Amino acid sequence: MIYVISTGMGDYLDLTGRAIKALNECEIIVGYKKYVGLIEKHFPNKKFISYSMREEVARCEFVLKIAHDENKNVGLISGGDAGIYGMAGLVLELSGKDDIIKIIPGLTSATAAAALLGAPLSNDFAVISLSDLLTPQEVILKRVKCSCDGDFVICFYNPGSERRRELFKQACSIIMEYREKNTPAAIVTDVSREGQECKILTISEIQNYEPKMNQTIIIGNSKTFNRNGKIITPRGYKI
Amino acid sequence: MIYVISTGMGDYLDLTGRAIKALNECEIIVGYKKYVGLIEKHFPNKKFISYSMREEVARCEFVLKIAHDENKNVGLISGGDAGIYGMAGLVLELSGKDDIIKIIPGLTSATAAAALLGAPLSNDFAVISLSDLLTPQEVILKRVKCSCDGDFVICFYNPGSERRRELFKQACSIIMEYREKNTPAAIVTDVSREGQECKILTISEIQNYEPKMNQTIIIGNSKTFNRNGKIITPRGYKI
Repeated sequence: MIYVISTGMGDYLDLTGRAIKALNECEIIVGYKKYVGLIEKHFPNKKFISYSMREEVARCEFVLKIAHDENKNVGLISGGDAGIYGMAGLVLELSGKDDIIKIIPGLTSATAAAALLGAPLSNDFAVISLSDLLTPQEVILKRVKCSCDGDFVICFYNPGSERRRELFKQACSIIMEYREKNTPAAIVTDVSREGQECKILTISEIQNYEPKMNQTIIIGNSKTFNRNGKIITPRGYKI
Repeated sequence: MIYVISTGMGDYLDLTGRAIKALNECEIIVGYKKYVGLIEKHFPNKKFISYSMREEVARCEFVLKIAHDENKNVGLISGGDAGIYGMAGLVLELSGKDDIIKIIPGLTSATAAAALLGAPLSNDFAVISLSDLLTPQEVILKRVKCSCDGDFVICFYNPGSERRRELFKQACSIIMEYREKNTPAAIVTDVSREGQECKILTISEIQNYEPKMNQTIIIGNSKTFNRNGKIITPRGYKI
């Protein structure tokens, strides 16, 4: 059996009981080195194998081989939730036999960041990755425009990297056409990890910001407000 | 202190360690009776207070009063993730002092349902509640249209109730204008609870379905496919 295990933000307390149970049932646990580094100390009797970034296909092929050839329980860990820009999709795509794969959901950056910021996702929202490695930039920017048109709160994953700074700025330009300048916009860095930091700004302030891979960015909808340093998107209760 | 605690799908194994820790630190735990019923047996020494549906404001006012007047640690539980159509936003809106409120994120239906279905949320997606108690129907349907225009995977929360059957049908009609008839569409009932069930259909089959409150519905984007009973939205890896 292959357990695709969501490890959440990386702190042991962020794991669900089901994720801990699955990790304990595995003989070998495979993952991107950063996520392996965050959890291996809590499972000292397990064999962990670390891979570098962009070796996602190799990681999946390895666990599929072990599960098939050696009939072992193997864990494929995925930071955040394995189903959201994580390893679940790829391993299912590569596998011919889906019934040997069990996916364990977990905390994703959107909800973990939102909990630190207040309640920005309390109404309809869109989740968009700004990584253009696998999705063309024009598709990403079209999605930003459609999210604005529908007045969704927007949550950006992978908002930028050293190589990619312009796309976030372009996304902000589109958002500025639809939203007030003082719409709350927040950057959360390293949720639940060393160096965790929240910055609550406005859309006009954030547009010149250079985001990094370890950040999540949430932009409010037309009703989102900032009160005493918490961002709230009202659900609509009459209070 | 008020802990707003996400209880996930309701099974004890779905709780994070941080949620269990917070529940153990509370003297009184308040929530909607269904969610209280799912977790109280695991915390036999705690005092639980149950409220009915639509008493959300009363529930928040009660915990704010206890926290202020009696200076006690009180838990306000919220099924799924408290920040997604949950109690986090309302209690923050009603509170004057946000620094006494700590939000503990958790599993939300979108990720828990997705894990059962395969990997439908592996690319950009929109989360839309079809409940029209707090959001006008025309706003909801506009969001459905914009999600289609942006080719987002769509995840519907609160897809229907006995009183509200037509809105889902109207949403499906809009989606049918944009997507192929055989686009995968899935209904997940009672995730991680007794009676859990997954139905994988197509958008043309699902449009006549009468959804219920205890269900989550996920509709694929233009690239989502069904393989051996698992729904996958490819992220875009060349494999």
